[in-house]
Order: sequence, then C-alpha cells, then structure tokens
Amino acid sequence: MVRTKSEQQVEFRCIRGGSGETEMHKILNNAEELYGKGRMFNHMFLAPGRSIGEHRHEGDNEIFYFLKGSGVYSDNGNPVRVGPGDTAVCSSGESHSLKNDGDEPLEFIALILY
Amino acid sequence: MVRTKSEQQVEFRCIRGGSGETEMHKILNNAEELYGKGRMFNHMFLAPGRSIGEHRHEGDNEIFYFLKGSGVYSDNGNPVRVGPGDTAVCSSGESHSLKNDGDEPLEFIALILY
Repeated sequence: MVRTKSEQQVEFRCIRGGSGETEMHKILNNAEELYGKGRMFNHMFLAPGRSIGEHRHEGDNEIFYFLKGSGVYSDNGNPVRVGPGDTAVCSSGESHSLKNDGDEPLEFIALILY
Repeated sequence: MVRTKSEQQVEFRCIRGGSGETEMHKILNNAEELYGKGRMFNHMFLAPGRSIGEHRHEGDNEIFYFLKGSGVYSDNGNPVRVGPGDTAVCSSGESHSLKNDGDEPLEFIALILY
C-alpha cells in the first residue's frame, strides 16, 4: 500500500502545554496501522519559538529523530542541544520536552511504541 | 537518552540482491532498543541508480516514509512513483522493492515492526 503525501493526514495540536501548535504529519494514522505495537508515527514540524511541554511517559516509549533545525530537548530535566541526525529516547517512567530556539522549523520523526 | 549523530551507527549493505549498497543510519540499533516491538528503525540513503531487491516479508511488516528524492517502489509487483511525504507499507505476506531512478539520493525512514 502506498499513501501519497496528498492523502496524508495533517493535524495541528498544542502538545502538553507547550507554546503554540506542533504540525503533525501522520506517517501511519493509528495504533492499528502500527500493528498494535505503538500509537504514533509522525513527521513533526515545530516552528521557531514553539515548544512541546514537559511530560512523563508511562506505559509507552517515545523516540524523536531529528531531521532539520536546532532545538533544546529536555532529557528528564537535563537540557541537551539537538539537531539533524540526533536520536532522543524517552522510555516509560521518563520525562521530556522540546523547544525550537532556532530560526528555522525543527523537523523530526516521532514514534511511540508500547 | 540522547544519541548524537556522531555516535550514530552507519552500515552499508547490499539489500536483497539489489544494485549497490544502501547507506543505513541507525535511529535505534536493535530489537531491544525497539522495546521488542520490531527490529529496524533507520534513516536510509539510496544513491542514484541503486536499488533494494524485491523480497517478501513474513512475520514482520516494513514501513518506508520518503523524505527526499524520487524513486520507483514496487508494491507487490506494481510500480509506484514515490517521493517526499509518501508512505509505503509492506505487511507480512506482501513483497516490495525500491529503485532510485532519479539523479539525487533517495532518502527515507524505514521501520520494521513485528
């Protein structure tokens, strides 16, 4: 099955009390499409100045893989500069947040696995 | 945990009898890092003229999400033009292949879930 870009679901959402909305392009649309192994697989775009608020994962695990731009990732409260080619992992029981403090969109892949 | 680009594992492999090697940048390194839910999560680079050979998936499922370039994806033998923003899914029991027939690298995310 091929789903073209024109058929891709796009959602704008303020995530976990962050600043502004995150643009979420769905690579897969739901848990069923993830074969029951997770619940999100998105190409994300965070505009300059915007953020995803700090939150804790319980019972699932989230992976960010950065494609473009620059930002500050909170890894359990420790700020880490992130950019293209970096991977950030937030396992169950851990917390994270993300802020685009650069001047271009911060693009990343986000995957949540159970 | 943040793994920086400089720590990223990169592997070159001729995949399933394709033409030339595919450059595989590992977002996660193994099944354990995928929480036992899959076995591969890579940022892939296929140079112009190179391909991944046709093969069938049994017992796992592979998702390609295209970031850059242009190629021809075989969806169970049916050729489909793919490019940025397109998603291709090969579920267990299906087959696929991929060829970069463009003049720039074909970049995509590949995820295999059980």
